[in-house]
Amino acid sequence: MTAPNRNALWAQAIVEELVAAGVDAACLTPGSRSTPLAVAFATHDDVHVFSHLDERSSAFFALGRARRTGRVTPIVCTSGTAAANFHPAVLEADRARVPLLALTADRPPELRDSGANQTVDQEKLYGGAVRYYKDLPEPEAAPRKLRSLRTTVARALSAAEGTPAGPVHLNVPFAKPLEPTAVEGDVPDDLDPVAAEGRRPSQSTTEPFVDRMPGTPELDDGRLRRLADDLEAERGLIVAGPADPPRFDRESIVALSHATGYPILADPLSGLRFGGHVRVAPVISGYDGYLTVDPDDAPAGPVDDWPAPEVVLRLGASPTSKPLREYLARTGADQYVVDPAGEWREAEFSATDLVVADPSRLCARLSEVVRGRSSTAEQWRRRWETADRIHFEEARKWIDRGDGMQGRALYEGWVLADVVDLAPDPATVFVSNSMPVRDADRFAAADTSAVTMLGNRGVSGIDGIASTALGAGSGTTDELICVLGDLAFYHDMNGLLALDRCGIDATFVLVNNDGGGIFHKLPIERFDPPFTRQFKTPHGLDFEPSEELYGFSFARVDARPESALETPRQTFRDRLSGAIDGEGSHVVELRTDANAGHRAREALEATVLERVAQETQTQ
Amino acid sequence: MTAPNRNALWAQAIVEELVAAGVDAACLTPGSRSTPLAVAFATHDDVHVFSHLDERSSAFFALGRARRTGRVTPIVCTSGTAAANFHPAVLEADRARVPLLALTADRPPELRDSGANQTVDQEKLYGGAVRYYKDLPEPEAAPRKLRSLRTTVARALSAAEGTPAGPVHLNVPFAKPLEPTAVEGDVPDDLDPVAAEGRRPSQSTTEPFVDRMPGTPELDDGRLRRLADDLEAERGLIVAGPADPPRFDRESIVALSHATGYPILADPLSGLRFGGHVRVAPVISGYDGYLTVDPDDAPAGPVDDWPAPEVVLRLGASPTSKPLREYLARTGADQYVVDPAGEWREAEFSATDLVVADPSRLCARLSEVVRGRSSTAEQWRRRWETADRIHFEEARKWIDRGDGMQGRALYEGWVLADVVDLAPDPATVFVSNSMPVRDADRFAAADTSAVTMLGNRGVSGIDGIASTALGAGSGTTDELICVLGDLAFYHDMNGLLALDRCGIDATFVLVNNDGGGIFHKLPIERFDPPFTRQFKTPHGLDFEPSEELYGFSFARVDARPESALETPRQTFRDRLSGAIDGEGSHVVELRTDANAGHRAREALEATVLERVAQETQTQ
Repeated sequence: MTAPNRNALWAQAIVEELVAAGVDAACLTPGSRSTPLAVAFATHDDVHVFSHLDERSSAFFALGRARRTGRVTPIVCTSGTAAANFHPAVLEADRARVPLLALTADRPPELRDSGANQTVDQEKLYGGAVRYYKDLPEPEAAPRKLRSLRTTVARALSAAEGTPAGPVHLNVPFAKPLEPTAVEGDVPDDLDPVAAEGRRPSQSTTEPFVDRMPGTPELDDGRLRRLADDLEAERGLIVAGPADPPRFDRESIVALSHATGYPILADPLSGLRFGGHVRVAPVISGYDGYLTVDPDDAPAGPVDDWPAPEVVLRLGASPTSKPLREYLARTGADQYVVDPAGEWREAEFSATDLVVADPSRLCARLSEVVRGRSSTAEQWRRRWETADRIHFEEARKWIDRGDGMQGRALYEGWVLADVVDLAPDPATVFVSNSMPVRDADRFAAADTSAVTMLGNRGVSGIDGIASTALGAGSGTTDELICVLGDLAFYHDMNGLLALDRCGIDATFVLVNNDGGGIFHKLPIERFDPPFTRQFKTPHGLDFEPSEELYGFSFARVDARPESALETPRQTFRDRLSGAIDGEGSHVVELRTDANAGHRAREALEATVLERVAQETQTQ
Repeated sequence: MTAPNRNALWAQAIVEELVAAGVDAACLTPGSRSTPLAVAFATHDDVHVFSHLDERSSAFFALGRARRTGRVTPIVCTSGTAAANFHPAVLEADRARVPLLALTADRPPELRDSGANQTVDQEKLYGGAVRYYKDLPEPEAAPRKLRSLRTTVARALSAAEGTPAGPVHLNVPFAKPLEPTAVEGDVPDDLDPVAAEGRRPSQSTTEPFVDRMPGTPELDDGRLRRLADDLEAERGLIVAGPADPPRFDRESIVALSHATGYPILADPLSGLRFGGHVRVAPVISGYDGYLTVDPDDAPAGPVDDWPAPEVVLRLGASPTSKPLREYLARTGADQYVVDPAGEWREAEFSATDLVVADPSRLCARLSEVVRGRSSTAEQWRRRWETADRIHFEEARKWIDRGDGMQGRALYEGWVLADVVDLAPDPATVFVSNSMPVRDADRFAAADTSAVTMLGNRGVSGIDGIASTALGAGSGTTDELICVLGDLAFYHDMNGLLALDRCGIDATFVLVNNDGGGIFHKLPIERFDPPFTRQFKTPHGLDFEPSEELYGFSFARVDARPESALETPRQTFRDRLSGAIDGEGSHVVELRTDANAGHRAREALEATVLERVAQETQTQ
């Protein structure tokens, strides 16, 4: 490695260490202060550069890529507000445990707080949201400094991809010259080669300066045995919430389900709802449709009339389904929250035990030591399967025969089932907040197709959705489908530039109900004004012109109750199939009416609850 | 005031205090957790609500409004990443000293760090960038709590609008119910009326709970005298950088200029370059065209051959012009940096004295005690006026006669002169980073028209430009013109929704050179690759379809060297006049070639420097 000046040497060392540790891409955004880093990334043969113009989108793109691959894609920006635009994605990465490395260029220390242009206090800019932060020293071609730098890069990656994974931040000051101009005497000829060039066993191979051997927590045999004993109860549940990336080891969870006889309540983002294992495992996916929230004035649902579960093993983050969370909180079961990071991700405070262990490995080990399932476990499991069947039967019935306006109105939610149905095998399906992920939870039944369903449920924002989806798409050869609402589509329209700029093909399903449909689920609906203007916030935007801006094809299907279209569902399915099969990128807009949609969901739920009550009490 | 529950009472108290203190508008974004605040703002008769969908745009809008009015427009958001989207505008508000109040709704304390949905650590989310931060206690209808709340709101406003003005952050936790549902016993009937309703001398008037009487620092008479003595030097300069809002008192600065005979070098954002005072004051505005940067290998410019200034009085932030900053650093003059906040906004570290005083009042007082101007002051001032005249003469000559391709290429910068020329009287002209503000600095000559020129020079980002401009427009009845480049236009395209949603008319001048033209000014230009792809970042976006998305009319003028258009300048002027005179909002795109533009700027500068050298040495 040769470097024309100390800044170039410094940036090259950073990039070399990242590449040696497995980084294969970076997200860059234009700027002057970040020049040494941009040049080092752009000129490295083994780095694929994704060039973005909006730092907010860039960070979400890197987040999505890491969400899909489990590996860091560094994000690089210039000094100033650019770095603050990373902040939303950093927060999501923190709570969702997605590895992310922010490299923010900075002015040299003497210019901080000096009134110099484009200079803000970037120290600990993301507060406690990052796993590791370091303000790097100023570049210098000195052996100890370079060894420290290489160690720091390894350490940052180790923290980002550790347990729990998450964002890390290196603030990187540079003084001029920023470009790779030769500066005489800046880089001594006789510099310690390991410091200057890293560890190179041969000309063609580079190894990390410090190799990482990450460990994960495990229970000792005694504690494992005690937990296994508790799993010999008659009625148990394995609840799999949204998975930390990369994902759960399915076979291990299924093995435990077989060993115990417990059904797996699989969140749509758990990675356990879709896949071949569904053929052989009792994966329950309709619970959001027949469990109930428990406001003080409402009766509990029919499932509360079943015998209560005695033990619940909770994996992953808190489930998306509020009815599920509240049901679990009501049961009084022993609840084991398994978390490799020792965090307490259970906001109903109904957990009775925290198990600090890697969930997949724990399930695998438990499946070997659990002594056998209870004889009544099957009856318990069958209740869940029956309820599941009823929920999906009723929903399909409404959808298939239209059922007056209700079937049509219900399609706002059921569209998620059709997306999974029509998705190629394999496919990555990214579902937005706030309604698509909930509708996926309720309507996308467990299925053997190889669908990888992802979402941003760390903080559940509606920002950065398109970018996160496209980032995920960049990390896989799967077909990419992203389902998002109109507010999310608007919020990150900038992110669509990556379709062309980063060469990614995608199909967006835009569920357009002109505003925040989810607010119809909330009590504020009854207070109008200000409901419509400040909560539902209809905008009246016609998104069709965005096709010309960003180069995709746009199709619209009107499924609103008043639509003249006779078969909106079939039309939508045709359009979606066409988009998936066609070249390039597509937006298929489904126009819906949020109010009608919510009323239809409620009506369906009432029907389902009634049937579940009738048909499962005698089991 | 009646309130159905403690949350509503709490939010009403916040809004009442804000209104009593003069707040007349708020920027809301949809969300559930912020419901009490949204309802309180939306239902208050004296609050104009600007409803936004993207929190980043919302915050910049409020920043722009405060930039124009000098007063706080609160920004309200729900919990989670929404709050992080405020961060870029918070940083700009900090460095640009613009009052901003962020009200971030939060989950109640027990849900923090619990794995609950949409919950991040919002404590001190903006770090040291805010003047005041408080995590409010949970709402409670208790007299001391409410008195504390009302005091806190006054204190936050006082800090935001104090010296230096800037952002403040109140984090506001709410537990359910969030909507204004009646909760029995939540608000006692016999609550202390002052705590519950604030200070109300009568039914129709509300006064702030705590009135604020802000003081500003002043020099005592002895120090003032000593400073005045120094201003009796033969050669002095008054350098006015970008002004903190609201603005300098022009008469006071002009009075000091008259008393001393010193010319005023007026940054385009100083508020001193445009206005009636220009008729009577020696306002110098072409310095960026004939002062020179001083790289080690270049000769200093002709102004360096003049006798050096002995004293420089610096007001406001660091000037936009790098040639000016570097010239001042080279002169060896006594440099008085006047800053009411006692900060040291002078990044060349050439200041010799820091004067902690309100600049307008200081100038007014100095103008009364300065004993009279030196006899040679006039000669010194004439040199500057001559150089100014030459710069603008030469530029106009090229522009008027075309001068081969150079005149056309120069129009990328000169367009800022035409914007000021065609701007109605009065007008608010918002100039973006990074080139428009620099081109305004170089080409928009001092003028008697009532142009209020604004920009985001706190951190000089290219984010949030359209929103900031529209916010400024919302605070004035002036015609609003915003000049911005294509990267800035892209970055904040979401902000254009405010045109329709907030009912603001604007004319955008979109200088489109397909990427980061400013990078042609930097040495990285010589390194391609990666120059074009990672720095200039051409995107090839055709922005015309955005007119349909956001409801404005779009016109394009091609002024590139290869354009077939014979009179691009006249065509552009016609289009711009039409836009200004027409109904509704407009985008007038000027297509330019950044490389040709920079070469033309350089060639003009060479010509100007030569003439300045010839014609001012003998003066």
